Amino acid sequence: MILVNGVANAMIQPSDRGLSYGDGVFRTLLLRDALNGNWRRQYAKLASDCARLRIACPDATLFEQDFAQLGSDAGVIKLIVTRGAGQRGYMPPELTSPTRIVSAAPLPVYPPQCARDGVAVRVCGLRLSRQPMLAGIKHLNRLENVLARSEWQDPDIMEGLLLDDTDHVIGGTMTNLFAVRGNVLHTPDLSNSGIAGVTRERIMGYAANLGLAVSVGQLTLNDLYASDEVMLCNSIIGIWQIRELERKKWLNGRYTALLRTLLETIDD
Amino acid sequence: MILVNGVANAMIQPSDRGLSYGDGVFRTLLLRDALNGNWRRQYAKLASDCARLRIACPDATLFEQDFAQLGSDAGVIKLIVTRGAGQRGYMPPELTSPTRIVSAAPLPVYPPQCARDGVAVRVCGLRLSRQPMLAGIKHLNRLENVLARSEWQDPDIMEGLLLDDTDHVIGGTMTNLFAVRGNVLHTPDLSNSGIAGVTRERIMGYAANLGLAVSVGQLTLNDLYASDEVMLCNSIIGIWQIRELERKKWLNGRYTALLRTLLETIDD
Repeated sequence: MILVNGVANAMIQPSDRGLSYGDGVFRTLLLRDALNGNWRRQYAKLASDCARLRIACPDATLFEQDFAQLGSDAGVIKLIVTRGAGQRGYMPPELTSPTRIVSAAPLPVYPPQCARDGVAVRVCGLRLSRQPMLAGIKHLNRLENVLARSEWQDPDIMEGLLLDDTDHVIGGTMTNLFAVRGNVLHTPDLSNSGIAGVTRERIMGYAANLGLAVSVGQLTLNDLYASDEVMLCNSIIGIWQIRELERKKWLNGRYTALLRTLLETIDD
Repeated sequence: MILVNGVANAMIQPSDRGLSYGDGVFRTLLLRDALNGNWRRQYAKLASDCARLRIACPDATLFEQDFAQLGSDAGVIKLIVTRGAGQRGYMPPELTSPTRIVSAAPLPVYPPQCARDGVAVRVCGLRLSRQPMLAGIKHLNRLENVLARSEWQDPDIMEGLLLDDTDHVIGGTMTNLFAVRGNVLHTPDLSNSGIAGVTRERIMGYAANLGLAVSVGQLTLNDLYASDEVMLCNSIIGIWQIRELERKKWLNGRYTALLRTLLETIDD
């Protein structure tokens, strides 16, 4: 089911700036997270992304009414907020009425061994550009992700890592990345590229519970190879350890399972 | 009037990848150019942009049927081709049916002195990112242009110049740029940022007629200040000389008017 401004199975105006320019933001979350404490975090990020683009974010209650309409059979919810319909031209109209799109999809089925044994991952050829004005925002300009995800078809490769044009690791095409080395949980600095996801934020908050210090900074592939445990996360998969990256393999570490337990049990 | 896959006033599916990811390309042209030799050039660029994103470009005849439906009162035509509707996820479906959107708008009214006396232009604060995989393509990921165009409201400033993050001039928010110095027509290299427009291509082709050599390369603001004549172009405005850029002013040069005459009389 898809709701457009609360109306079931409605369509989008061809003049919507979300279509013309990718002028909007989005979020993807599990339906169960839309009904618990995690929703506050998701909405806060949506509102913050809207604010960075000066799009008026619809009230949380409007989304909550949409969720109630979706019913409980949906597994994954995607929210899109665009700046709304507009005239020709890049200049945003002074007053726009944002478009709110809420759609439901079944839970994607991943092989159980992804969570249990970790996943095989490749390094994408595409290098992410750096744009501090847009970095971190989950906006609708996602051609880099589309091109990167088009690079491989092998169903055994679950994710591709994206480096920026200075060869620093930013994350996966659809995931954020963490690497444990000693007692430090490293994660890439996202001030120039990438999307700062809600699950990344949660994991950073849980590190202290596990006796890990958090370091946000620049990471190279060699830094990953030298790490004890490297993980990928997002709101749908939760967390997966990287088992294999190019020629490097890792045994099961201890932190991925601990973090998964925290993600699944703490209601924030 | 808006045609979606040839159907008047139809709407867009919320699952269209043009909306989800900006996964598509577009063109803007004068209706009169859709009825003359310039259309071949516009279509060739549309098809080439589609090919770079591996989107199946609809046949030219489909657009031509759309143009006939628009009638002759339209001034400006915008074409959008998206990869079509898709499931969740960045991976492009193997088979998609592209979405073709053709919309008509009145001719924008610019003060006649823009063409006659030139325009005042500012330098945008936003720096363009560099992405060789997308540079040159008129794709739907245009948040940089939206943010740049949001930087000023002054109606006397007709355009903002965009520099990349190495401070090289790429063009305007909606225009390509040329600078004449001596007998050389300089234009920015667009292999890392910017959109390579059809009017730019035409002007490069006309340079020899005017005794100018063409140089495509890196240009700084100082290179512009040291130029005899600096111009902006696109398919809608044709060509405007820059009269004023920050504190620098230029008198009317000879090449802008000559190039405008060529653009308006040569049917290609």
